[in-house]
Amino acid sequence: MSHWEKVSALEVYSEHDLSDIGAVLEGHAEFCREQIAPLSRIGDTLGARFDKGRVTMPEGAARAYAQFVEMGWQALTHPVDYGGIGLPRAVGAAAVEMLNAADMSFGLCPLLTDGAIEALLLTGSDDQKATYLEPLIAGRWSGTMNLTEPQAGSDLGRVATKAVRRADGSYGITGTKIFITYGAHDLTENIIHLVLARAPDASQGPKGLSLFIVPQKLVEPDGTPGAANAVNCVSIEHKLGVRGSPTAVLDFADATGFLIGEENCGLEYMFIMMNAARFSVGVQGIAISERAYQRALAYARDRIQSRPVNGSAKDAVAIIEHPDVRRMLMRMRSLTEGGRAMAAATAGLLDIAHHQDHPEMAALAEFMVPLVKGFCSERAVEVASLGVQIHGGMGFIEETGAAQHYRDARILPIYEGTTAIQANDLLGRKVMRDGGATARLFAARIAETEATLARGDATAQAIGTSLAQARGAYEAALNWMLETGHKDIDASFAGSVPFLMLSGTLAAGWKLAKGALAAQTALDAGQNTQFMTRKIATALFFAQHILPECATEQTRILHGSRSLLDAAFPE
Amino acid sequence: MSHWEKVSALEVYSEHDLSDIGAVLEGHAEFCREQIAPLSRIGDTLGARFDKGRVTMPEGAARAYAQFVEMGWQALTHPVDYGGIGLPRAVGAAAVEMLNAADMSFGLCPLLTDGAIEALLLTGSDDQKATYLEPLIAGRWSGTMNLTEPQAGSDLGRVATKAVRRADGSYGITGTKIFITYGAHDLTENIIHLVLARAPDASQGPKGLSLFIVPQKLVEPDGTPGAANAVNCVSIEHKLGVRGSPTAVLDFADATGFLIGEENCGLEYMFIMMNAARFSVGVQGIAISERAYQRALAYARDRIQSRPVNGSAKDAVAIIEHPDVRRMLMRMRSLTEGGRAMAAATAGLLDIAHHQDHPEMAALAEFMVPLVKGFCSERAVEVASLGVQIHGGMGFIEETGAAQHYRDARILPIYEGTTAIQANDLLGRKVMRDGGATARLFAARIAETEATLARGDATAQAIGTSLAQARGAYEAALNWMLETGHKDIDASFAGSVPFLMLSGTLAAGWKLAKGALAAQTALDAGQNTQFMTRKIATALFFAQHILPECATEQTRILHGSRSLLDAAFPE
Repeated sequence: MSHWEKVSALEVYSEHDLSDIGAVLEGHAEFCREQIAPLSRIGDTLGARFDKGRVTMPEGAARAYAQFVEMGWQALTHPVDYGGIGLPRAVGAAAVEMLNAADMSFGLCPLLTDGAIEALLLTGSDDQKATYLEPLIAGRWSGTMNLTEPQAGSDLGRVATKAVRRADGSYGITGTKIFITYGAHDLTENIIHLVLARAPDASQGPKGLSLFIVPQKLVEPDGTPGAANAVNCVSIEHKLGVRGSPTAVLDFADATGFLIGEENCGLEYMFIMMNAARFSVGVQGIAISERAYQRALAYARDRIQSRPVNGSAKDAVAIIEHPDVRRMLMRMRSLTEGGRAMAAATAGLLDIAHHQDHPEMAALAEFMVPLVKGFCSERAVEVASLGVQIHGGMGFIEETGAAQHYRDARILPIYEGTTAIQANDLLGRKVMRDGGATARLFAARIAETEATLARGDATAQAIGTSLAQARGAYEAALNWMLETGHKDIDASFAGSVPFLMLSGTLAAGWKLAKGALAAQTALDAGQNTQFMTRKIATALFFAQHILPECATEQTRILHGSRSLLDAAFPE
Repeated sequence: MSHWEKVSALEVYSEHDLSDIGAVLEGHAEFCREQIAPLSRIGDTLGARFDKGRVTMPEGAARAYAQFVEMGWQALTHPVDYGGIGLPRAVGAAAVEMLNAADMSFGLCPLLTDGAIEALLLTGSDDQKATYLEPLIAGRWSGTMNLTEPQAGSDLGRVATKAVRRADGSYGITGTKIFITYGAHDLTENIIHLVLARAPDASQGPKGLSLFIVPQKLVEPDGTPGAANAVNCVSIEHKLGVRGSPTAVLDFADATGFLIGEENCGLEYMFIMMNAARFSVGVQGIAISERAYQRALAYARDRIQSRPVNGSAKDAVAIIEHPDVRRMLMRMRSLTEGGRAMAAATAGLLDIAHHQDHPEMAALAEFMVPLVKGFCSERAVEVASLGVQIHGGMGFIEETGAAQHYRDARILPIYEGTTAIQANDLLGRKVMRDGGATARLFAARIAETEATLARGDATAQAIGTSLAQARGAYEAALNWMLETGHKDIDASFAGSVPFLMLSGTLAAGWKLAKGALAAQTALDAGQNTQFMTRKIATALFFAQHILPECATEQTRILHGSRSLLDAAFPE
C-alpha cells in the first residue's frame, strides 16, 4: 500500500473524497497562475516599503491576499473544528509548492501563519485556541515567529528578550527581534507574533526560554482586534532576494504577551512550529526549482543558436538540442522531482504519524524532515544557478527573471535553521539518539526497493545498481558516524553536512526509483504513456548523474575529518 | 626548474630584476586596497547611469581610474616598445587578481583594454599599432570587444552587422551589438571598439566575419581624439551583478571602421583576444573567491554563537571553532588557492610559449586556458555561495557585502564563452585535434608529481594517493572520450562539461600538490613556517575533499550519456 493509500484510509479524512483531490489542486493551480504569479516580478522590483513604522506591501499584494483569504486557501490542511478544510499535509505540500513557485515572497506569509497555527494547536490553551485559531486559519490574521536577536541566531540560548509577569497573568515583553518575516505588513487585520523570551528568574541558556503570544493588536472580548500593542517595526531589511516580503526588526516595549503552555518550555514548543516550517522551507526549495526549470525549459526551446554538434542539421537549432543544455535541464528536472518525491513521501509519513500511534512511521518522518529541508534548499540554489546558466548572457539581466530565482533561493539553506543546524539535528537527534535504529530502518526500506528493481527491466536494474551503491556509501558513513560519534565528536560533526547531503540525495534517488517502478506498472497497463516514460527517464538520470555523488560524500566523511579539523587559520 | 625560474630566465625579461617583483605587487596591492576596494559597494549601490546616450560612472570611479592611469598599472605586462613595462603575464595575473578582488566592476575596464591591446599587437598593421597601442597601454583610452548581437551569442556565425567598403579604404559599419562591457563610459578620452562584422559579399557563417577597429572618436593625424564616430549607446543593462560596470547596447550607424588584417579572418583574430580574456576571467573567479573568503573568515572569527559541540567550553565561541564552519572555510580556501595555483602555472606557460619556440609548452598552455576559465569561474559561484552561508541570515542582507560577491560571480561562467563553450573548446580543439597527445602529456606530468609525493611523508603520500585516483578517473574519461568521439559525437559532448570540471579539478589539485612539495622543502629549510604549513594543509584538504569529485565526473561521462540524450522534454 502506498503512503497515499495509507493516508487516504485514515479515519480523520473519511469525510473527504480524496480520489478527487486533483480538482482541488487544479483550482489552486489556477489561482496561483492567474493571481499570484504576476506579483513575483512586481514585488521583486518595488519591494515592501517602510515609512515611519509602517510597512506598505507592493502593488497588487493586498488584492491577491484578499482573494487568497476569500477562497479559503489558508484553511486547506487545518482542522475542521476551527474552520479548516482538514485535508492531509500531503495535499497541503503540493499547494504550498504551487503558491511559492508562483511567488515565494507572497508564499512566506501563509507559511508563517501555518507555523503559528501548528504551534497553537499543539501547545495553546483552550482559550488561546478559541481566540486565535479561527481568524488565523481563515487567513484574516497572520502569524510570525520571533526567535532571532542580533546576538542570538543559530544559538537561541542567547535570547535576551525579557518577559515580566504582571498581576493580571499576562507578561510584559521587552526586547528587539530581527529577521521577522512578515513582522509588519498591511495585508491582515492583525498579526499574531509568537515570541521567545525569558522570565526574570529563568535560567540562562535555552532551557530558560518561554513562548508568548504577542498580538499586534490586542484582542477584544468579542474577538475583534482592538488597541495597538507596544510592538513597533523599527525598519525592514534590504535583502538579496524575496524582496516582495518584508523582513522586519521589531521592538517590543513592555508589550502585552500571553504565555503559551508552561514557562521555560518555550524552545520545545518553538521546535514544534519550526519542524513544520522546516518541512515547508524544503517545499519552497522545490517550488523555486520548479519555477526556474520551467523558465529555463521555455527559453531552451525558444532560443536558436548553433548547429548540432553531430552535424545532423545545417542550420542553427533550438539550444535544447545541444547535449550540455539537455544535461543542465535534466539535472534541474531530476533534482526538482527528486525533492518533490521525497517531500511528498515525508508529508504522508507526517500525516500518518500525526493521526495514528505508529512510532516507526513517526521516527521515519522526523528523520526525513532535516533531509527535506537540507536537500531541497541546497539543491534549489544549484538548480536556480543552472537556470541562469541556460539563459547565457540573458540570465544575468534582471528583466529575464532567471536571476530572481537565483537571488530568492539563497535564503533557503539559511532560514529556519541553516544546513549545518539541519545536519546537527539529523546526526544528534535522529541518528545518534536511538543508536542508529531509524537510520538503519531507512536503509532497509531502500534495500527492499532495490530487490524489486532487480526483478525489473534493464532500466530498473540500472537504477537499482546505482541505488545500491549509494546505499552502500550511506551505510559505510552511518557505521562510521555511530562508531566515531562517542569517541571523537568533532570528527563526526566535521562530516555532518556531507552526511546530510548523502542521506538527502539517497532519499531523493530512492523515492524517484519507487516512482519509476510505479510508472512502469502504469505503462504496462497502458496509462499516461508520455508522463510515465518521463518519470522513468528522470529516475534513471538521477541514478546515473546524482546518486554517484554519495560516494564522494562517503570519502569526505571517512577520510576527510583530520584535514578539516587540523587546518589552521593564521592571521 | 620551476615555471617561474624558466620565465625569469627568458631573454625578454633580462632588463627586469624579477627577484624583486614582490615590491611591485605590494605597491599594486596598496593601490587596490586604498583606492579601488572602497568603490565596490558604491558602484554596486549606485550603478552606472544612462541618460540620453551618455553613461555616467558611479562616484569615485573617475578619480580612481585617473590614478590607475597615472601609476601606469595598465602598462604592466605590455611591450616596452609601446610604452609598456614588459613584465611577465605570471606577474600580470597576480595584479589582475588583486584589482578584481578589490572591485570586479572596475577591473573589467582594464581587462577589456588588455584584450584589445593583445589583438592589435598580434594582428594590427604597423600604422594601427602606432595609432592605438600607446594610448591604450597608457590607459588613456580603453578597449571593448563587440561580438554579441541579439541573435548571435555563443553562435558568432550568426553575426549580422554589416561592413561596407568605402573608397578611402575604410568601412561603414552598421548594426547593433549587445552586452558590450564598458561600451560607453566617461573614464577615458576615447574608446576603441573592436567589432566583428560581415562584408557584403562575404559568406554566411563564422568564416565570413571580419574584425574592425571602430574608435568612438576618430583619431586626428596628431594622434589625438577628434570627431565623434557614428557609434551610439542606446541603453545599458540592469544586471544581477557587476552593477558598477556599464554593459551597453551599441548602435553602429555607418560608423567608420578600419579592417584589421584580412577580410574573413575576423573570428580567428577575435579568438586571440578572447583567449587572453578567457584566462583573465578565470583570474576574476579567483579574485571574487578570495574576496568572499576573506570576508567570511573575518566574520567567522568575529561572530560568537553556540558552545563547542565537543563540550570543551561552557560559553559560546567564535563560529570558526565549529566544525562545519571550518569545513566551509577550508572548501573556500582550497578552491581559491587551487585555482590560483593553476592560473599562475598557466600564465608561466603562456609567457614561455609566447617568447620561445616550444610547441609542447604552447600546447599545454592552450590546454590549460579553458580549464582556468571553466574551473575558476564555476568554483567562484560555489565559493561566493558558501561565503553567504557562513554569514547566516546576515549574508542575505545586502549591506553585509557577501551577497554582492554571489551576484557578481554569476556572470563568470557565462561571459567570454560559457562553460559549455569552454568544454567544447577543450574537447574539440585541445583533446581530439591532436588525438589526445597533449591531454596525455598533462596526465604524465601529474604522474611525475605523484612519484615525488610517494617519496615524501605521510601527508605527501596521502595527497599522492588522492591525486593518483583522480588522475585515474581522468585517464579513464579521456580514453572513453577518444574512443567515443568519432563513433558517437553526441555522447562525447554529453560529457564535455563533466570532463572539463574533472580536468580542471585535477589540474588545481595537482598544482596544489606541487605547492605542498615546495612548501615542505621550505619548511625543511626552516623558512616561513606558518605560511608553508598552511599551504600543505590546503593541499591535503583539496586532495581529500575536492579531488574525490573526479570519480563522480568519470561515472557521469562513462555511464551517463544515454540517460541524458534519450530523455524527452514533452510539452
